[in-house]
Amino acid sequence: MSADKTLSPVRLTMRAGPGQPEPSPALEQLYRGFEQELLVPLWTEIGDLMPLHPHSKATPHLWRWERLVALADQAGRLVPVGRGGERRAIALANPSLGGKPYATPTLWAAIQYLMPGEDAPEHRHTQHAFRFVVEGEGVWTVVGGDPVRMSRGDFLPQSGWNWHAHHNAATRPMAWIDGLDIPFSYVTESQFFEFGRDKLAPDEMSTPERSRSERLWGYPGLRPASRPDPLPATPLLAYRWADTDRALAEQLALEQEGHAVTLGPGHAAVRFTNPTSGRDVLPTIRTEMHRLRAGARTRSWREVGSSVYQVFDGRGNVRVGERSWSVSRGDMFVVPSWQPFSAQADGDAALDLFRFGDAPIFEALHAHRVQVDAA
Amino acid sequence: MSADKTLSPVRLTMRAGPGQPEPSPALEQLYRGFEQELLVPLWTEIGDLMPLHPHSKATPHLWRWERLVALADQAGRLVPVGRGGERRAIALANPSLGGKPYATPTLWAAIQYLMPGEDAPEHRHTQHAFRFVVEGEGVWTVVGGDPVRMSRGDFLPQSGWNWHAHHNAATRPMAWIDGLDIPFSYVTESQFFEFGRDKLAPDEMSTPERSRSERLWGYPGLRPASRPDPLPATPLLAYRWADTDRALAEQLALEQEGHAVTLGPGHAAVRFTNPTSGRDVLPTIRTEMHRLRAGARTRSWREVGSSVYQVFDGRGNVRVGERSWSVSRGDMFVVPSWQPFSAQADGDAALDLFRFGDAPIFEALHAHRVQVDAA
Amino acid sequence: MSADKTLSPVRLTMRAGPGQPEPSPALEQLYRGFEQELLVPLWTEIGDLMPLHPHSKATPHLWRWERLVALADQAGRLVPVGRGGERRAIALANPSLGGKPYATPTLWAAIQYLMPGEDAPEHRHTQHAFRFVVEGEGVWTVVGGDPVRMSRGDFLPQSGWNWHAHHNAATRPMAWIDGLDIPFSYVTESQFFEFGRDKLAPDEMSTPERSRSERLWGYPGLRPASRPDPLPATPLLAYRWADTDRALAEQLALEQEGHAVTLGPGHAAVRFTNPTSGRDVLPTIRTEMHRLRAGARTRSWREVGSSVYQVFDGRGNVRVGERSWSVSRGDMFVVPSWQPFSAQADGDAALDLFRFGDAPIFEALHAHRVQVDAA
Amino acid sequence: MSADKTLSPVRLTMRAGPGQPEPSPALEQLYRGFEQELLVPLWTEIGDLMPLHPHSKATPHLWRWERLVALADQAGRLVPVGRGGERRAIALANPSLGGKPYATPTLWAAIQYLMPGEDAPEHRHTQHAFRFVVEGEGVWTVVGGDPVRMSRGDFLPQSGWNWHAHHNAATRPMAWIDGLDIPFSYVTESQFFEFGRDKLAPDEMSTPERSRSERLWGYPGLRPASRPDPLPATPLLAYRWADTDRALAEQLALEQEGHAVTLGPGHAAVRFTNPTSGRDVLPTIRTEMHRLRAGARTRSWREVGSSVYQVFDGRGNVRVGERSWSVSRGDMFVVPSWQPFSAQADGDAALDLFRFGDAPIFEALHAHRVQVDAA
Repeated sequence: MSADKTLSPVRLTMRAGPGQPEPSPALEQLYRGFEQELLVPLWTEIGDLMPLHPHSKATPHLWRWERLVALADQAGRLVPVGRGGERRAIALANPSLGGKPYATPTLWAAIQYLMPGEDAPEHRHTQHAFRFVVEGEGVWTVVGGDPVRMSRGDFLPQSGWNWHAHHNAATRPMAWIDGLDIPFSYVTESQFFEFGRDKLAPDEMSTPERSRSERLWGYPGLRPASRPDPLPATPLLAYRWADTDRALAEQLALEQEGHAVTLGPGHAAVRFTNPTSGRDVLPTIRTEMHRLRAGARTRSWREVGSSVYQVFDGRGNVRVGERSWSVSRGDMFVVPSWQPFSAQADGDAALDLFRFGDAPIFEALHAHRVQVDAA
Repeated sequence: MSADKTLSPVRLTMRAGPGQPEPSPALEQLYRGFEQELLVPLWTEIGDLMPLHPHSKATPHLWRWERLVALADQAGRLVPVGRGGERRAIALANPSLGGKPYATPTLWAAIQYLMPGEDAPEHRHTQHAFRFVVEGEGVWTVVGGDPVRMSRGDFLPQSGWNWHAHHNAATRPMAWIDGLDIPFSYVTESQFFEFGRDKLAPDEMSTPERSRSERLWGYPGLRPASRPDPLPATPLLAYRWADTDRALAEQLALEQEGHAVTLGPGHAAVRFTNPTSGRDVLPTIRTEMHRLRAGARTRSWREVGSSVYQVFDGRGNVRVGERSWSVSRGDMFVVPSWQPFSAQADGDAALDLFRFGDAPIFEALHAHRVQVDAA
Repeated sequence: MSADKTLSPVRLTMRAGPGQPEPSPALEQLYRGFEQELLVPLWTEIGDLMPLHPHSKATPHLWRWERLVALADQAGRLVPVGRGGERRAIALANPSLGGKPYATPTLWAAIQYLMPGEDAPEHRHTQHAFRFVVEGEGVWTVVGGDPVRMSRGDFLPQSGWNWHAHHNAATRPMAWIDGLDIPFSYVTESQFFEFGRDKLAPDEMSTPERSRSERLWGYPGLRPASRPDPLPATPLLAYRWADTDRALAEQLALEQEGHAVTLGPGHAAVRFTNPTSGRDVLPTIRTEMHRLRAGARTRSWREVGSSVYQVFDGRGNVRVGERSWSVSRGDMFVVPSWQPFSAQADGDAALDLFRFGDAPIFEALHAHRVQVDAA
Repeated sequence: MSADKTLSPVRLTMRAGPGQPEPSPALEQLYRGFEQELLVPLWTEIGDLMPLHPHSKATPHLWRWERLVALADQAGRLVPVGRGGERRAIALANPSLGGKPYATPTLWAAIQYLMPGEDAPEHRHTQHAFRFVVEGEGVWTVVGGDPVRMSRGDFLPQSGWNWHAHHNAATRPMAWIDGLDIPFSYVTESQFFEFGRDKLAPDEMSTPERSRSERLWGYPGLRPASRPDPLPATPLLAYRWADTDRALAEQLALEQEGHAVTLGPGHAAVRFTNPTSGRDVLPTIRTEMHRLRAGARTRSWREVGSSVYQVFDGRGNVRVGERSWSVSRGDMFVVPSWQPFSAQADGDAALDLFRFGDAPIFEALHAHRVQVDAA
């Protein structure tokens, strides 16, 4: 029942300080007893374990798109895609999370890369996923037998437990980013995975302009009468850039006309949602596209939970906690929990930022908080 | 406290029959006592009051569009539109509802008619409303200062307590239909009304191609990040025919390709929904557009609650309870609660049916039932 | 299709007034056309149909308990209880609702009376019901085979579509009140009814102290782990007076100790709720017990929707709209929609008021409003 | 921007195996590039990161109550309670979680111990907590100024962000267990903490039989009319053993009488719920009391998410994954995610098991799964 003393992973050290008991031989003996019985007192841990506010283990960090693409391209030549490895996906590893492939404690962010003619084999998993395309085209994702083409600016959610594969029918490699809740599922130990077919069916080897999911669901405010019930995640498999771009442009135009529809002056944003519920597109991941008018800047704010951003277009400056960077197309960075974030577009062009974060987890559990910093 | 005997509205008669007490002078005296004290026993009422299933007071009935338009046009020349009368709206009066302007016990359905240059003055009410346009254009509805143009096939929801007015800027009169929950609000005594401005502002005297609400909300699955919360009714003020038509066409095409997306063979249908919740567009009114492929027919089914249909396009035959009619563009008919309904498109063209009904009331109260009749 | 002119229920009369068209022969002809086609214009109806706020058709009215019991007792001797009549229930008929057995436009309120040894036969209906006992005991209700005893102060909800019967095993007659949503179901045409067994089973011919439902559900905050999902209505079939009384007494005691837990000074109230959801005990009916400390009075307030009150104990004065009455045990009165209501306890004893109303209907449809009048 | 190569926490090794690229100098160089840029490929991680089903890092483990109490008692003599250390709480450290004070990856479970006359100072935190008392009495918890006594069998939920302190007014020390979502909050970085008053007010230095929260909320199905809205967590601060015990006894009695109310033969269970919603008592923690009739055994089942059990009474045998133990009063053990669990009561007495787990997290995110193993 109790662990061998020499093997116990618990290690307790008497320390001085507020709230700490006076070191003594008896205390030393007590701590050895705790170790032997696999016990840890609160009083030695509380400062780290129950901080006054979130102190993220993660660090603000930036990855340059040119470096990501260069390495992905190198991997394209060296690393085959196939069963077992499943995907040529290369994940951002937050520098202070011990070398694990975690952009933040809850989020996976990766660049995925597919060479001409390659297939990423079919599988499914309960982790929720999406693809976002910052450049290129020619690849499609086959979801439950429905081929969905991918082009610059498109957002493709992939809710958990749907079969999916990728195929590149173009003559050039293509890169895009994947976002998943892999770390969250991993630490909470709630994930399932299944392998699917090794090859796609002939009718999945080409892609139409519009996927079946878009033909069924891709209309504002309309739903098939045969599908009246709410679904936990979106049935719409592609949110096209033309819509997203227009929605952002119109928000800024409406703002100019005097209507309070933006998040702040010159700061438009749309959220990708599940049309069967109006809620976030995936149960664990919030996804948004933000646009800052040339020269505009956001308020500085902090939230419970973490986010990953990718610059979709434009140039600007972003500030995360103590760090700040000049950014341009494709650059990716993380905003850890409760770290202040702000952004400013350069004076000559709008700045478009794609963002994904874990806010739906905290909202579902009544644990979300947002704090806007004084201007 | 008790009513004067001669004035009591209660009238009780001794009757023979199962569950009825034996007539006697003492019973007669008891019934007079009930009348005097404003009391009614269950045993004399139960058969009508608590039937085995809904027996609607309403009757299946059809109104021909040509007659509706002819009379509306006549009214256009004789009846001014203005404060007090508020709208040149002419309501369907179900023949068995005592001459009241009720299409069904819960629903108001009317043809509204506006002459060139006319304005219907601004007001607001808690009754939920919509406009549906079977023909014509040139009128717009101004909702909270947002002019929304109206064209054939467009559906314009108007949730309760929004200021609204209409203006006809065309050189011809225009007709459309209004649907509201006026009878429901009336019998449940839950309605409020306020008069608004008598004249529109100059910038409301023309209408853009797209209303502000469409510019903000009219994208599949996207919502402004500044509007994250569910709303009781839709903020999208126009559902355009191009979208509705395409959604129906795609459902039928997908069915042809082997996908189970229709309500039944050759029977496509879309529901108009609130993008902030995925639920019905209005809290009390369900609205749908149905399309039957040429020659197709629906199953016969019955529901708790009533509906009003308008033929949007095509020709066919509809059956409601014991009645059946050949129908064509613009014709309107009612389906009372728990009456079987079925429809068949003529062999040479699709039949498009716009439908509105009170199902959300019963779903919200866990009282909805649907029964599909044996084929 | 169109009704014979002479039979049309529609009757339109040219009138002068704001918003009315100028009478003329042409208008007369138009109105005849409307009648023939079963049409009613809005402009002749709007004042009544769309009032500025609810103007209830119902009238404030009081029924004295002594008169109710006297007539029920007379009925007990003259009117047998059995299949067909189903129940010896005698309903309050609001004086301005045309002699119908409606306490308000949505609510049924009746005194039910059972003689020693009598059985009210089993049936079920979708209408939601409850029993409330102002005096007496000895009767029980058998719900789905579960006998539930009834005693003074007990509240017994009976959600729709449950089989139920009543049995009086005592040596004396017993009276209680029934509340149902019969008028609401009737006007919205949403009700079903089935006859059950004619005789109870032997093990249903006696009643234990606690029903099975109470043994399973009657614990604060506890639910059977085998029943984890929300139910549309309460599974708890009896809310006992001992609990209700204590909850009210404690609210007043806590108020005395300085805690803001009452509805107003000296005005305690508990709501009967569905333990699987925390919501109202029945989907369409709110039920509450109010207690006014001796001498205390409520604010005057008005609500969308109607209520029926019964004085459970004490004496006081109540004011409804333009009416006011001195009331004592058992007296029943109605508060129509949007009529102001207030109550005051006499100086020598608390006043306990049982109340039921239709507020859940309006809350579910986002149509509820409450207005507290200036003090 | 990119980490110094020598400091990068990322360490990648070329390996052979299915899905792994052929080792080569170029691959070696690629991996060094990944390390330098803080990137980790999926293909080296997927086996661990995306398993076919949850493989918990945690291990089934048992802690004996006598050892817990003995060490807690020793701590009582050596470790003062006060500001800084905050609580004399000693946490179970799962043997395979690296010595961290985590019973499971999401749950904290501790024995807390208070000497006569001691106070644990006031604080509040967003982590949700509860106390469960397996033996003793004399301590109370003061929540928002409301002293709540604690006795054997009582369950005291403590939802996040409520001020609370403990006081022992008895002449003997007292132990109880604390359960919290500390590890979940920690790994998701969502927690806040504040220090409160150092001393309780005079009127908090004694405890009444019933707390204010029980006086206001402790009635089956009743709620104060002044508190009509759902709350994220329960307002009821104590669930007393008398109720829990009776509910379990009645479930077993009803089962004997032929009613399907238990989880399985001889296996009764109640869930502690939030009376304002009918849902789990805390947003992140499910709590239940299970009772096995003498000799009865449960099915073997597995769930997504982890649980901690404490034997409240009786003796029996429990099986968790590959481990099994004979258990008796006070013993605590953990069931990691997706590990099969079953229990059997000894033949001579019922076995009562208190359980808490993280299921509400997964249910809120649509990620819960349960699998009952073949008998």
